[in-house]
Amino acid sequence: MSAPEHEIEEEGSAGYERVVAFSDGVFAIAITLLVLGLDVPDLPESRAPDELAGALRDLGPQVASYFIGFAVIGAFWLGHHRFFEQLRRFDSTLLLLNLAFLAFISLMPFTTGVFGRYGEVEAAVILYAANVVAASGFDTAMLWIALRRELLPPAALAHPGLMLLSNVLPALVFLCSIPVAFVDPGIAPYVWIALFVVSPLLVRTISRRVEADG
Amino acid sequence: MSAPEHEIEEEGSAGYERVVAFSDGVFAIAITLLVLGLDVPDLPESRAPDELAGALRDLGPQVASYFIGFAVIGAFWLGHHRFFEQLRRFDSTLLLLNLAFLAFISLMPFTTGVFGRYGEVEAAVILYAANVVAASGFDTAMLWIALRRELLPPAALAHPGLMLLSNVLPALVFLCSIPVAFVDPGIAPYVWIALFVVSPLLVRTISRRVEADG
Amino acid sequence: MSAPEHEIEEEGSAGYERVVAFSDGVFAIAITLLVLGLDVPDLPESRAPDELAGALRDLGPQVASYFIGFAVIGAFWLGHHRFFEQLRRFDSTLLLLNLAFLAFISLMPFTTGVFGRYGEVEAAVILYAANVVAASGFDTAMLWIALRRELLPPAALAHPGLMLLSNVLPALVFLCSIPVAFVDPGIAPYVWIALFVVSPLLVRTISRRVEADG
Amino acid sequence: MSAPEHEIEEEGSAGYERVVAFSDGVFAIAITLLVLGLDVPDLPESRAPDELAGALRDLGPQVASYFIGFAVIGAFWLGHHRFFEQLRRFDSTLLLLNLAFLAFISLMPFTTGVFGRYGEVEAAVILYAANVVAASGFDTAMLWIALRRELLPPAALAHPGLMLLSNVLPALVFLCSIPVAFVDPGIAPYVWIALFVVSPLLVRTISRRVEADG
Repeated sequence: MSAPEHEIEEEGSAGYERVVAFSDGVFAIAITLLVLGLDVPDLPESRAPDELAGALRDLGPQVASYFIGFAVIGAFWLGHHRFFEQLRRFDSTLLLLNLAFLAFISLMPFTTGVFGRYGEVEAAVILYAANVVAASGFDTAMLWIALRRELLPPAALAHPGLMLLSNVLPALVFLCSIPVAFVDPGIAPYVWIALFVVSPLLVRTISRRVEADG
Repeated sequence: MSAPEHEIEEEGSAGYERVVAFSDGVFAIAITLLVLGLDVPDLPESRAPDELAGALRDLGPQVASYFIGFAVIGAFWLGHHRFFEQLRRFDSTLLLLNLAFLAFISLMPFTTGVFGRYGEVEAAVILYAANVVAASGFDTAMLWIALRRELLPPAALAHPGLMLLSNVLPALVFLCSIPVAFVDPGIAPYVWIALFVVSPLLVRTISRRVEADG
Repeated sequence: MSAPEHEIEEEGSAGYERVVAFSDGVFAIAITLLVLGLDVPDLPESRAPDELAGALRDLGPQVASYFIGFAVIGAFWLGHHRFFEQLRRFDSTLLLLNLAFLAFISLMPFTTGVFGRYGEVEAAVILYAANVVAASGFDTAMLWIALRRELLPPAALAHPGLMLLSNVLPALVFLCSIPVAFVDPGIAPYVWIALFVVSPLLVRTISRRVEADG
Repeated sequence: MSAPEHEIEEEGSAGYERVVAFSDGVFAIAITLLVLGLDVPDLPESRAPDELAGALRDLGPQVASYFIGFAVIGAFWLGHHRFFEQLRRFDSTLLLLNLAFLAFISLMPFTTGVFGRYGEVEAAVILYAANVVAASGFDTAMLWIALRRELLPPAALAHPGLMLLSNVLPALVFLCSIPVAFVDPGIAPYVWIALFVVSPLLVRTISRRVEADG
């Protein structure tokens, strides 16, 4: 906490390490609780030999939503990770925004579960997309505060527009998928998958630019 | 553990770092388990397209209690965080009080769940308020011991009354909400929200005073 | 891992810090999962105002078992904590015994739940007591290996008998409560409570003796 | 992160310590959630004294699968532990493979639960074996990348074949148990137990060879 990279400016702010450890704990628990969205099929013993394979196959959409939910929380964790690695200082605004952000990460086992169970219904798709948008919103707000208050290293501060764009991208993609869900809920997940292809490329491009200048 | 800030006085006491890590683990898990209070609606497949949106809207109070519960555990975590940042020494009394405190934090996914499901019923409001009062009580007991045994830095010890007051405030607010719940359970949560407005102001004022003298 | 206190003797053994962090994680999660033994009462909305208070009172035994379970896991954590604080070296036998020990800690949310629900039935009392005995057994086996292989500091090695006795005590008390449960399951928990009174005194006595010689 | 053992080569990669802490969190939570596969029996109060002992005995297969699942996740954790202890550098490919690996570890409370409930049905055995094979596959892929990109110390790089073999062994054993399950699902678990006997011997042999050369 007294190391130069982890300076704490404002009074009342909390220790850097412990905030990161607490955030990692919430990420690790939320990502692992996704598995509770997969219920062990409840079959009478006599019918299990014949019907279990089919019952497990019927869980296909839930299993798919488990992996989508794992990738989404994993991607947020990676982003949070990169952001805190660069962060030079920490203030109480960031602390509160981080808690609000974590509240929406921690909500995901529920919204992922609804999406896994009712993936063909627009309300389920919209609920999940709205959850991701809310989490992304607080994530971007943290970056915005960090850029405005110059809590990041100079190299990062040189490209504020690029950094904000790459950060706001998931929110935009999931936001766009909401009207898509009104037309056909089945298409929205494909919009999300596009994100997973485009996003790493954009992040890599920005990192290279920032490095080149740094 | 041998660093001057983390002195351990009495024999039989446990390592500072590991106590903090264990406490953070319990906080992170309890706050994340709040999501288990939100059950995925159970609708037959044929009726889901028409009824899911309504079923999710009916979960409104549970979602509200999820965010209240998240804010309450988050606020306790911040307070615990600030307290342990200042703490100079640690003894086995604090260790036991900390475990008792964590037992009531860890109980909150249950009491928050009862409140979310039956928020209009006085017993649910009282149960949740009593849980917060119990957690606050052990929290304040830890501060009281730390002040009496001079386990805090001199600046903090200069204003024991102010520190105890800001610490006991949540307990007082939730305690006052119990008789309010007997009159009208629906009003009690608004008493709690008042706390979230007043509390940060008070904490900031005290921090400034302590800093000014420190 | 290269610090002198954390020497690792045998090849194939794992890093000290990470074993402690993993153990603490399992302790923190197991202790927090105890709350899942408390189910939110399921009442129709119309009857909740009249019946909720009674339904919560009926949960009394579950709440009591929650606190007993919390105290038991907390006590094991404190013991584990003290043991690893003293431990000088670590080998793969200890690593495996530690995993087996954690398997029985991690089982406690289930056995505590059975005890909370059926506390008056001897099978429930015996199941819970047997779980505590098994955990204690592996705990004592770790101490025995550490004493035999001289993995503890000289002061601790001076009183092997006293240390083993204080460690094996919980197992003995819970073991004695099993025949008691056959006579009257309701008495067994009072045998356990005796443990919580005697045990800290014994631990303190031993610590003082070891300190005096150390 | 700037220590020589924890060099990070490629840009965009995340801090070594935090990756390890996050992985340990997921391991600790997944291993502890296995207990949720054990449901407290639901008996009417009047019949509990007579039927609880029998109902608990009927849980035998679930308890057995709990311990198998604990041993399997524990073994993966030990392997992960050893691998990251040796790892010199870290890149974003390893980061993504590690997340994919953790997704299959985190799935195990579900597949272990299905196996515990329907251990005599081939679909349950195959599902669990397939989960272990998938986790092992990503584990081996991490080792393969680390060997190819020379992210391990010279001694480890001297025996790539032996290291890959010991790593791929669990996958092979569980893979072989799948056709066995088609013949008789009851035999497959005994194939797995063979693994637990052979595997430590092989790991020890390799460690000694690597040490001897190192």
